Amino acid sequence: MEMSNLKELFLAELSDMHSAERQLIEALPKLARQAGSPQLKRALEQHLRVTEGQLERLDRIFDSLGEKPKRKKCKGMEGLIGEGSEMVREATDEAVRDAAIIAGAQKVEHYEIAAYGTLRTYAETLGDSANGKLLDQSLEEEKEADVKLSEIAESAVNVEAASPA
Amino acid sequence: MEMSNLKELFLAELSDMHSAERQLIEALPKLARQAGSPQLKRALEQHLRVTEGQLERLDRIFDSLGEKPKRKKCKGMEGLIGEGSEMVREATDEAVRDAAIIAGAQKVEHYEIAAYGTLRTYAETLGDSANGKLLDQSLEEEKEADVKLSEIAESAVNVEAASPA
Repeated sequence: MEMSNLKELFLAELSDMHSAERQLIEALPKLARQAGSPQLKRALEQHLRVTEGQLERLDRIFDSLGEKPKRKKCKGMEGLIGEGSEMVREATDEAVRDAAIIAGAQKVEHYEIAAYGTLRTYAETLGDSANGKLLDQSLEEEKEADVKLSEIAESAVNVEAASPA
Repeated sequence: MEMSNLKELFLAELSDMHSAERQLIEALPKLARQAGSPQLKRALEQHLRVTEGQLERLDRIFDSLGEKPKRKKCKGMEGLIGEGSEMVREATDEAVRDAAIIAGAQKVEHYEIAAYGTLRTYAETLGDSANGKLLDQSLEEEKEADVKLSEIAESAVNVEAASPA
């Protein structure tokens, strides 16, 4: 699939993100089940709903452009989810497992912060301010989710993980 | 490899980052060769030197802990590099290729921002402020690299990519 202008790159990165969000929607319920801290569990369940909204937003953007997402798996998200699951599996203590879940989730959030930042800038450069605004909403949601995870880690989880029961 | 406390998770995440930096040191020269914009080429070459310094910093941290990094490939970075290379390969216009290089590099920077942020917090929670400081230096370098890439994209590359020659 060749790309000779920014619009085509925009569509390729949008498709990539569409696949990334779909993978995340599959992964988040599993992570929420594995979380020990009720606060972390709630944050992951809430982020699942936010993620579903972001996927719908991407569908609206594709509709507005008269395009469909390519069915190509996002390798970046695949690697992040694979790495995170492995770390979580290897944690034998509950607080350590929670810390590993947060570490993996923050890598995912940052992937999305980079991707949505890029997509928003592409939309603006292409003069598509309506879609630029939608992408900016998703970007802000990802930043909030990242801050919330840091708070949960620093307020309790890491300290418990440092001195497990 | 089981992890039952934060120290073990810290070591596992340090090993992961050690592999990530090594993969990046292999990938950056190739990206710099593919870049068309002299400004982007310079930024990538400069970031290669910064990355080499970050790998040395990780080696110093392992030494200080009397440990060695595990020889396990970081899947997150592997996915990010794979995805980025594919996007770059599919770009047939020089400015579009530069935009794709920047998009991929910013995903990598954000991976490292998340990982170094987590590692620094773990070091601090473990009362290891010397290594916390080293990790904070790498974190700040990654944030600077990300800002610089945004500037290059927004000042020239994206606009050229939007209206290729």
